[in-house]
Amino acid sequence: MTRIGLYGVAGHMGRTLIGEINASESCTISGGCDRPGSPDLGRDIGMLGGLPALGIAVTDDAGAVCDVSDVIVDYSSAAATMALLPVAIAHRTPVLVCTTGFDADQKAALADAGRSIPILVGANMSASVIAMYELVKTAARLLGDDFDIEIFDFHPWDKIDAPSGTALELAEYAAEGRGAELSDLTVFARHGETGRRKRGSIGFSSARGGEVVCENTVFFAGAGQRLEIISRVTDYRAFAATTLRAAEWIAQQGPGYYSMDQMLRDQAAR
Amino acid sequence: MTRIGLYGVAGHMGRTLIGEINASESCTISGGCDRPGSPDLGRDIGMLGGLPALGIAVTDDAGAVCDVSDVIVDYSSAAATMALLPVAIAHRTPVLVCTTGFDADQKAALADAGRSIPILVGANMSASVIAMYELVKTAARLLGDDFDIEIFDFHPWDKIDAPSGTALELAEYAAEGRGAELSDLTVFARHGETGRRKRGSIGFSSARGGEVVCENTVFFAGAGQRLEIISRVTDYRAFAATTLRAAEWIAQQGPGYYSMDQMLRDQAAR
Amino acid sequence: MTRIGLYGVAGHMGRTLIGEINASESCTISGGCDRPGSPDLGRDIGMLGGLPALGIAVTDDAGAVCDVSDVIVDYSSAAATMALLPVAIAHRTPVLVCTTGFDADQKAALADAGRSIPILVGANMSASVIAMYELVKTAARLLGDDFDIEIFDFHPWDKIDAPSGTALELAEYAAEGRGAELSDLTVFARHGETGRRKRGSIGFSSARGGEVVCENTVFFAGAGQRLEIISRVTDYRAFAATTLRAAEWIAQQGPGYYSMDQMLRDQAAR
Amino acid sequence: MTRIGLYGVAGHMGRTLIGEINASESCTISGGCDRPGSPDLGRDIGMLGGLPALGIAVTDDAGAVCDVSDVIVDYSSAAATMALLPVAIAHRTPVLVCTTGFDADQKAALADAGRSIPILVGANMSASVIAMYELVKTAARLLGDDFDIEIFDFHPWDKIDAPSGTALELAEYAAEGRGAELSDLTVFARHGETGRRKRGSIGFSSARGGEVVCENTVFFAGAGQRLEIISRVTDYRAFAATTLRAAEWIAQQGPGYYSMDQMLRDQAAR
Repeated sequence: MTRIGLYGVAGHMGRTLIGEINASESCTISGGCDRPGSPDLGRDIGMLGGLPALGIAVTDDAGAVCDVSDVIVDYSSAAATMALLPVAIAHRTPVLVCTTGFDADQKAALADAGRSIPILVGANMSASVIAMYELVKTAARLLGDDFDIEIFDFHPWDKIDAPSGTALELAEYAAEGRGAELSDLTVFARHGETGRRKRGSIGFSSARGGEVVCENTVFFAGAGQRLEIISRVTDYRAFAATTLRAAEWIAQQGPGYYSMDQMLRDQAAR
Repeated sequence: MTRIGLYGVAGHMGRTLIGEINASESCTISGGCDRPGSPDLGRDIGMLGGLPALGIAVTDDAGAVCDVSDVIVDYSSAAATMALLPVAIAHRTPVLVCTTGFDADQKAALADAGRSIPILVGANMSASVIAMYELVKTAARLLGDDFDIEIFDFHPWDKIDAPSGTALELAEYAAEGRGAELSDLTVFARHGETGRRKRGSIGFSSARGGEVVCENTVFFAGAGQRLEIISRVTDYRAFAATTLRAAEWIAQQGPGYYSMDQMLRDQAAR
Repeated sequence: MTRIGLYGVAGHMGRTLIGEINASESCTISGGCDRPGSPDLGRDIGMLGGLPALGIAVTDDAGAVCDVSDVIVDYSSAAATMALLPVAIAHRTPVLVCTTGFDADQKAALADAGRSIPILVGANMSASVIAMYELVKTAARLLGDDFDIEIFDFHPWDKIDAPSGTALELAEYAAEGRGAELSDLTVFARHGETGRRKRGSIGFSSARGGEVVCENTVFFAGAGQRLEIISRVTDYRAFAATTLRAAEWIAQQGPGYYSMDQMLRDQAAR
Repeated sequence: MTRIGLYGVAGHMGRTLIGEINASESCTISGGCDRPGSPDLGRDIGMLGGLPALGIAVTDDAGAVCDVSDVIVDYSSAAATMALLPVAIAHRTPVLVCTTGFDADQKAALADAGRSIPILVGANMSASVIAMYELVKTAARLLGDDFDIEIFDFHPWDKIDAPSGTALELAEYAAEGRGAELSDLTVFARHGETGRRKRGSIGFSSARGGEVVCENTVFFAGAGQRLEIISRVTDYRAFAATTLRAAEWIAQQGPGYYSMDQMLRDQAAR
């Protein structure tokens, strides 16, 4: 049984994972941490997840959670993840990072942590998006520059940035499929006199509203035809299965900075 | 038989209308004007439209076309429409304006022309978009502020501005349905740290690529549900039927500045 | 405070309503009935809805629930609704019927009950679908027979019939918008050599899979253009707000067989 | 210069190809054949394609076209293709078959022709659909049986069968991705009491209306998420580029029965 500690336990995904871990046969919930000042500190984790009480209180002491966990699953914020890293390193606890929105310095800090502990970073844990990464790379390779690539993401009203981290990752895969560098191709936020679209560019557009969890579309627009690949995530539980699989996997690795691709290849090889 | 002169005859819609007018039983093509320097000046209009020769050459003399026409149909550019107005006024020729992208001064000039000649301005002549105007107004009224409105438009790679004129018109109808002023609500081109969506706002996003003629989507995103209204125009001929109907109608009006709503109400009343 | 009894309390919508009624300030939950033999008989209703215990046990005695309720909300099955009617009549309890799939005889029985008690029947309680009814009627009227109407519904893997009740209702509104009789127009389940589509017909197609609660699309396909109206319901809570509004409304009416249109008009008139 | 003879020259694709071949630098149009009794027999092929006259008349003599062609491109009907085969064999002329709707006997006849002449059969020549075959196979492999596969096709009002040949081909690729036999999985035309969806099945649904050339969607519906892959073909020209590439390729092969996969692999290998 893998003992999982949840970091950001009072958020959407934290609460969802409480029930999913509780229902799982291969892992168990060992603790839950939320930010200092959170109104949920001290509450029973089971009740937080809509279950009977589990006898574990929400804490803001990440070290205490590391002490009783084989792996920390982090769904918090970029800044909170940075605060977690030294604690996890001090406790030698593996970390699965599912938070997004890191800047370049923060990404370097994540990679650096891999010298001390096993750390796996994944932007999107839904099976449909993970499959979509592969499909977008393949489509970009097969269709080439004759097809214009546009990425449209639709996220809930309270998301505070645009485009989504998943949209940016999809663009990375599209550029890779074309054998190009993404940074040379991006066009954000068209407004006013934009001029004609440049051949080979990748355009982004974002809508915000309602509550749909996460929706990303990649368009390949050609002459007289258009290919579309869409992932619609409508329930946070969609992220749970892969999150638990990834948590169990990183708990068994040695120190290192791992990607989802590595995990998927490793599991496929067995 | 209504004699129609085409202004902007060498563009997509000009060429399409040549064949459609030729196939019509209630109107006939009387002339075609394109911009000075156009490589199509002097060509036979029939051949330009993929028909046998009609014995009428493309000209850059708008007055000469007014002389032989009961109405001018304008699919050109905002600046070219401005050049047309004094000529049409001098010749007392009615004008149907299907061009978009006018600024405030240009809009005032269009309205002012209505003191001298009959002039009808319509941003989108496809039946599906005209119906959509009505549907969006109704949906905005029925669903209210609990549903977030987002407008997404997808246009060909060579469109030089964003959002589309049709997207902006759709937003006017949405605001009207809510009893609000559009200018207080618009959010364009989200990029980077945008913060949370403001309740009641109307967001715009635009994709560009390929050749689909005109595609506009209005989303109404609520709690646990979403309503979508989409118009996909895939062939320029979709604009032809209403264009001819509107041309024949404005040719029979007295001087004035008319809207598509007025024409539709007038025709429905008969 | 309107006292609401839930009939079919252990189903998706029953469980969802427990929490929604509990959170409401104008109504309260008075009892819950499920089918004889249900494994949930005797359970506390609060716990069934993911809440603390409310001290009310699930029963299979509909009469006992009628005794303590101002209105019964029915999300069960067509047969179970038929069993409810004589009990509600005997207790003079108003009923809101949200169940679907009634045959002609069962529909007659519902109407007949309106001679004794207030009864309101609504196939779909989501605001987006209720708005869609109106939009589809308007679009059918505006676009006419030149546009081919097709209705596509996507429902969860465990739905046992096709097309959906909502799809059939949407077709009723489309036929009404055209001033036609639906029964003359329907085309179900194309397979094999179907021949060409008949002008004016309304086609149905259905997909089943996954868990999306309820998704219905109406296409209006014309020459070179297509209009689409889509409602995507992704959470059962989307039905709750209108269900409670309708329950409170029918609880205050005299005996009669009411439609959702009547309720909406009555509420708009205030 | 590859000399191409068009079989079914007066159909949508025949007419479209006249202009595309004429504009190509590596091939030329050598003749055009249509069915006996066609009103277009004797017309000039250029005029049929909206071009100036080319001095070649439409004929119903397939042998005469074979005599002057390096390859025959067939966009006709299943029966007409069967009539072509013995003629092409007698003239040793390679054939590209883009017709669909063959029954088992007719498929055997096509394969048999490969013993005498080079013959390449492809159900859909648009780049977006050809890419989609690969994507659907990959997605089916990655997502597995936890995701329900549904295939929805939308074709013009005058298509006489359902589902489309392309939809059936997409299902073949999906089944292959899962390592299953398609014939064990298909569910067509749900109507009435269908019962629950069987795990692992592949469902088909079809809409007909308007003029969109060819639209196919594959849904992968899972718990709380859905992946969609869509190809929308809006102009017959979308088929032209790959058709010409395939025609030039098969013209250079020895006798044999070839698939599009073989051609694509062969071209990728160069």
